[in-house]
Amino acid sequence: MERDWIRLISRMTLEEKAGMCSGLDFWRLKGIERLGIPSVMVTDGPHGLRKQKEGADHLGLFDSVPATCFPSAAGVAASWDRELIEQMGQALGEECQAEDVAILLGPGANIKRSPLCGRNFEYFSEDPYLSSEMAAHHILGVQSQGVGTSLKHFAANNQEHRRMTSDSVVDERTLREIYLASFEGAVKKAQPWTVMCAYNKVNGTFASENEYLLTDILKEEWGHEGFVVSDWGAVNERADGLAAGLELEMPSSGGAGDRKIVEAVRAGLLPEEKLDRAVERILRIIYKAVDNKKPNATYDSEAHHRLARAIARESMVLLKNEDNLLPLSKDSRIAVIGALAATPRFQGGGSSHIKPAKLDDIREEIAKKTGSEARILYAQGYNLDSDESDARQVREAIRIASESDVAVLFVGLPDRCESEGYDRTHLRLPANQIELIQAIAAEQPNLAVVLSNGSPVEMPWIGSAKAVLEAYLGGQALGGAIADLLFGDANPCGKLAETFPKRLEDNPSSLFYFGEGDRAEYREGIFVGYRYYDTKKIEPLFPFGHGLSYTTFEYAELSISKKEMRDDETLDVQVTVKNTGDRAGKEIVQLYVGDVESTAIRPVKELKGFAKAELAPGERKTVTFSLDKRSFAYYDVELNDWRVETGEFEIMIGKSSRDIVLTDTVRVESTTTAWKKATRNSTVGDLLADPATRPIMARILKEGNPLGGGSGEDAEGFADMMEAIVKYMPLRALISFGGGSMSEEQLDRILEQLNEELTRGNGE
Amino acid sequence: MERDWIRLISRMTLEEKAGMCSGLDFWRLKGIERLGIPSVMVTDGPHGLRKQKEGADHLGLFDSVPATCFPSAAGVAASWDRELIEQMGQALGEECQAEDVAILLGPGANIKRSPLCGRNFEYFSEDPYLSSEMAAHHILGVQSQGVGTSLKHFAANNQEHRRMTSDSVVDERTLREIYLASFEGAVKKAQPWTVMCAYNKVNGTFASENEYLLTDILKEEWGHEGFVVSDWGAVNERADGLAAGLELEMPSSGGAGDRKIVEAVRAGLLPEEKLDRAVERILRIIYKAVDNKKPNATYDSEAHHRLARAIARESMVLLKNEDNLLPLSKDSRIAVIGALAATPRFQGGGSSHIKPAKLDDIREEIAKKTGSEARILYAQGYNLDSDESDARQVREAIRIASESDVAVLFVGLPDRCESEGYDRTHLRLPANQIELIQAIAAEQPNLAVVLSNGSPVEMPWIGSAKAVLEAYLGGQALGGAIADLLFGDANPCGKLAETFPKRLEDNPSSLFYFGEGDRAEYREGIFVGYRYYDTKKIEPLFPFGHGLSYTTFEYAELSISKKEMRDDETLDVQVTVKNTGDRAGKEIVQLYVGDVESTAIRPVKELKGFAKAELAPGERKTVTFSLDKRSFAYYDVELNDWRVETGEFEIMIGKSSRDIVLTDTVRVESTTTAWKKATRNSTVGDLLADPATRPIMARILKEGNPLGGGSGEDAEGFADMMEAIVKYMPLRALISFGGGSMSEEQLDRILEQLNEELTRGNGE
Repeated sequence: MERDWIRLISRMTLEEKAGMCSGLDFWRLKGIERLGIPSVMVTDGPHGLRKQKEGADHLGLFDSVPATCFPSAAGVAASWDRELIEQMGQALGEECQAEDVAILLGPGANIKRSPLCGRNFEYFSEDPYLSSEMAAHHILGVQSQGVGTSLKHFAANNQEHRRMTSDSVVDERTLREIYLASFEGAVKKAQPWTVMCAYNKVNGTFASENEYLLTDILKEEWGHEGFVVSDWGAVNERADGLAAGLELEMPSSGGAGDRKIVEAVRAGLLPEEKLDRAVERILRIIYKAVDNKKPNATYDSEAHHRLARAIARESMVLLKNEDNLLPLSKDSRIAVIGALAATPRFQGGGSSHIKPAKLDDIREEIAKKTGSEARILYAQGYNLDSDESDARQVREAIRIASESDVAVLFVGLPDRCESEGYDRTHLRLPANQIELIQAIAAEQPNLAVVLSNGSPVEMPWIGSAKAVLEAYLGGQALGGAIADLLFGDANPCGKLAETFPKRLEDNPSSLFYFGEGDRAEYREGIFVGYRYYDTKKIEPLFPFGHGLSYTTFEYAELSISKKEMRDDETLDVQVTVKNTGDRAGKEIVQLYVGDVESTAIRPVKELKGFAKAELAPGERKTVTFSLDKRSFAYYDVELNDWRVETGEFEIMIGKSSRDIVLTDTVRVESTTTAWKKATRNSTVGDLLADPATRPIMARILKEGNPLGGGSGEDAEGFADMMEAIVKYMPLRALISFGGGSMSEEQLDRILEQLNEELTRGNGE
Repeated sequence: MERDWIRLISRMTLEEKAGMCSGLDFWRLKGIERLGIPSVMVTDGPHGLRKQKEGADHLGLFDSVPATCFPSAAGVAASWDRELIEQMGQALGEECQAEDVAILLGPGANIKRSPLCGRNFEYFSEDPYLSSEMAAHHILGVQSQGVGTSLKHFAANNQEHRRMTSDSVVDERTLREIYLASFEGAVKKAQPWTVMCAYNKVNGTFASENEYLLTDILKEEWGHEGFVVSDWGAVNERADGLAAGLELEMPSSGGAGDRKIVEAVRAGLLPEEKLDRAVERILRIIYKAVDNKKPNATYDSEAHHRLARAIARESMVLLKNEDNLLPLSKDSRIAVIGALAATPRFQGGGSSHIKPAKLDDIREEIAKKTGSEARILYAQGYNLDSDESDARQVREAIRIASESDVAVLFVGLPDRCESEGYDRTHLRLPANQIELIQAIAAEQPNLAVVLSNGSPVEMPWIGSAKAVLEAYLGGQALGGAIADLLFGDANPCGKLAETFPKRLEDNPSSLFYFGEGDRAEYREGIFVGYRYYDTKKIEPLFPFGHGLSYTTFEYAELSISKKEMRDDETLDVQVTVKNTGDRAGKEIVQLYVGDVESTAIRPVKELKGFAKAELAPGERKTVTFSLDKRSFAYYDVELNDWRVETGEFEIMIGKSSRDIVLTDTVRVESTTTAWKKATRNSTVGDLLADPATRPIMARILKEGNPLGGGSGEDAEGFADMMEAIVKYMPLRALISFGGGSMSEEQLDRILEQLNEELTRGNGE
């Protein structure tokens, strides 16, 4: 239903309009009763509803109604499964409808710049393409139910340390290729009803006041149609924020922000039309929610639990499986060890922390598989609230491990180690857990480690465990999912959406993360995640895209639709995958592109496509990818646009970023003409390289050879140097080195000629 | 003799004054006959005179008079010997006097940002302290003879690639701590008569037009008294350069530059007083040269050759010496292999390439040691001008190696691989040399490799050689020096002034060196050389400061003069070194300082002192260092000054940067008061941490607790997060999160109170 927004807004007073631009309280937008505008509610997400009971606390942290707790984004991303996350979104949307929530706050598309970031569990990946695809399908799922989302935290919010005041200093190309790209794809593909601006500054300006981000890029370039909401408390100067494109302030500022807007309009500092446009954007979303409201909606909590289990199974990554220790036999005598088996860590701490509708008991789920509780022994092994080993606990754990066929050790990061609000300072597991792993391994070589954590840990103990299952933060059905995978009722298929480094120092941001005072410089630039490890040739513990299966896959028949193309065409890539093992399984096929030679500094490879194939034993499927300009382009800061440099590109098909199994090359022709102008500082080499200017340069060099005539007795070895010197010489240096053969006036005339040729060349 | 410069200048026409600011030709300054101002000559250095025969070529590359060729700076730096390089400077000064040269162009104090830089052989180190000390003593030596120097290339000229147009983009702190510091020490300690500005831009402005560098820092902050000369052809816009502090343009621009100065003065764009001051600076140096001229000076060429040999011996670094293969017995049958033994590489290519007065024959020098030519076999092994192996040459080399007791293999970088004018693109030796090393090693395990190169090479073959002697570019007496070291007539004592990485990718600048187009970003910042390898925990092939000896040294009795000090005091550090072997030897003792905890991002350690001790067998000496504020400080860009952060500092005494043998700590108290102002974006945590503002903040938090009252059922794990959230919260967020308990007006009043307390606190 299209309403007459202009008429509706014209009936509001200035104060009412300003009032529409901030929250009624912590969770609700304002309505205007006399105009029949309703108040709608928003609620934290993104892996479950955190609908707060009213008036609990000012920070809005505690007491929420029960809801399905799905796995956290870090895990869901490891599914690389667009459909699955869309199903999760649909379920979340259903719960929102049932709880009368208009907008679910999420998903988070921030890039994992460092594994230290305390909020990484809420984010998808170190790779912008994978992250934006996951975010887009999450949004599509939620919004398919007539419920809005809030894509967050826009932008460059990659640390918790001093998050409300720190300034992310990021060069334009890095922003475009990495940090913004993760949002760009999701906005363009899924049109989230709202986008949430971040707390931090970006290049000196608060994200909440950043016109370049909120208006120029988000609204104008990307065409975002909804509104921007502040992260809770992210508003600095309210009127500046509104002018920059921040429509809604949350939570309520008790009227302070509204008054600033009114004052700014009255003082002529803020055009009232800007306020009107902001109100219109907010109204459109309010009414979108109202129009899509499903009265008396309910949802099937049990079905959602089953979905949470299915998602959890695909979110977990089998990192290591020596001697095929996994899957376990259901007849085994199993020592289940670790406090995290009894008190599972299934979600992250902070605003996304929800109250799960139910929660699997891991030990019970394992026992169900074996059909006999008697075969399952349990020992706590360590305390969660301390790093100190407890000798008695360790002895008990060793005892049951030695009495069993296999030990399954549950370790990970307790809540205290990882949360929204602060960053880790190291990547280690608590010392008591590391000691326990080593103590158990010494007694029981059949050791499988199950990890619960939201972000990578170092594994100096990796040699002690035959199998490692990264369960991430698996949501309320993690117990069932882990049991399914451990015993082979499901086949692991997750692959890492992030690099696990051997040690923190290997991470690209390690020298400068998390900045000095309020200044965080992103000096590693575009070299985030595997882009860095690959280019610096640093061996990771487990590479981006890595994940094992209980079956095996073979790739063959890579074909590309053409060997030469223009950058405005698309390229189809096909590859065949075959399940060569004896179990059904799913394989995530990854496509990377690398520029063979480039004048721009580029990483060795970048993910540009992925697909998941489900295959019965012996089955073969063909997977298809489509590549376009962006698949080959880098962001050219001089052009202010994406640009493909003409040349060869390598198409790499990989099982992981480090296990490339098939490659081919395509030649892409750029359709961008970068208009160049010759100046007194254009180099001789550049002018000789350009066909338009080569003849003039050749003539000049012949007439006034800056090399002179000499070729003395010790000239040996000078040839290369002289060539380089002349190549790098700017035109103006011909005056110095020309031995008086060129004057400033002659140089000016030469420049005129060169530019005539360049203009002609570009006009052709 | 003090002259009346103002009167002299007042007698000049505007054109004459402008004329004084550029060269007469390639090598001479202008004089003014009618005023009796003489013309003086400058000549390329810095490891020997390259006085060109007149009119040879426009680039001034060929045909110079014979002069003593001392080892290149890369090697001399490895001597860590202030006195020795001063002696070298004196000898160079004597040759200048004899050749009527007023100013020797050098030394070069550019930092080795990347081992790829083609001109590294002319530079000293990756460490600014070592580099500036060597430069200072080079200058002191030359200038002691009444001859000027030209400290070059100022500044941030760290690549040859596009050197005349590229822009070195370096943050202020990195400039100050690394790239400028290397010049700063030399300028302050040695007052070079002239400083040569670099070709490149620094942060957007040509070094030749960079007022910040040439005037604000060099002349005003550092107090440089001489003049600045352009690198040959570095002038872009002459009048802008003069205004920025570039007094002398070289070479002659045929009058073009002079005319631009005249026009700018006439047009009122350049104050004539600036020109007058430039002329005065030039005149002062011209007359300094004239006043110090030694008529009919000569020098003892043989004595200089002996000095060159002594310096070469101390410049070479014994990198590896398994099974004490070295020194060789004089009775051994020795296979000398490698074209570089017959055609030695003893100096670098480019403007510093001189014509040596004589040149040692390496094979002859080796034969002299054994007393019998018959025991020395020679094979060429490879061709210098190709990367291709020659099977016949390899066979011959293997044959003589297998017939000998030991093989000494001379390898390195031929002239074509390394030169001024272009950078390397990899760190490998030519493939034919690598193949030869491996082929010889397979036949003759007693393999010693002698390297001739100006900058590190990768050594994938390191396991094949029992001994490796880094001979750098050893000057005309390299043959004698190598023979002295190989047979133990001299004991190796050089230590690396640069890190040898295992592979190029390990280098800190590898991702971004040498930039895109004309933009070279120094993204690794202060993490240059060992500062990076240490902090990133990357194992180098050979670390900074590494070098072996034929004897052994023990360190003991580290003592510091106080355990607590203010940053305006000095600290004396003493350590005892004992020669515990049976040969006389010299040991380079290194002192590093590390800030134990810092809010600034700092490297693990930084070199702040070094000393060389000569010790007879069994002898013990005490070495003393003095540390001052700069030894502990970092450059604070907000303060625009050096600042020590109060706290503990570790004093590390090392045999190398990776072999720290003794440590102690000192507490340094800062005398800098950084005046802070509370703003609406000051964080609660910062205000709680400051004793001045803590009481007010505590009261506010008590009254309007932003945490609210709630402690719901699922509060577990929230405690750390809540603490962090409040800590990182800016004051203005108390309005949002205060639940209406604070208004903008109250915030303003609180800020007033806080700032009153801060002012009072700072005033105390």
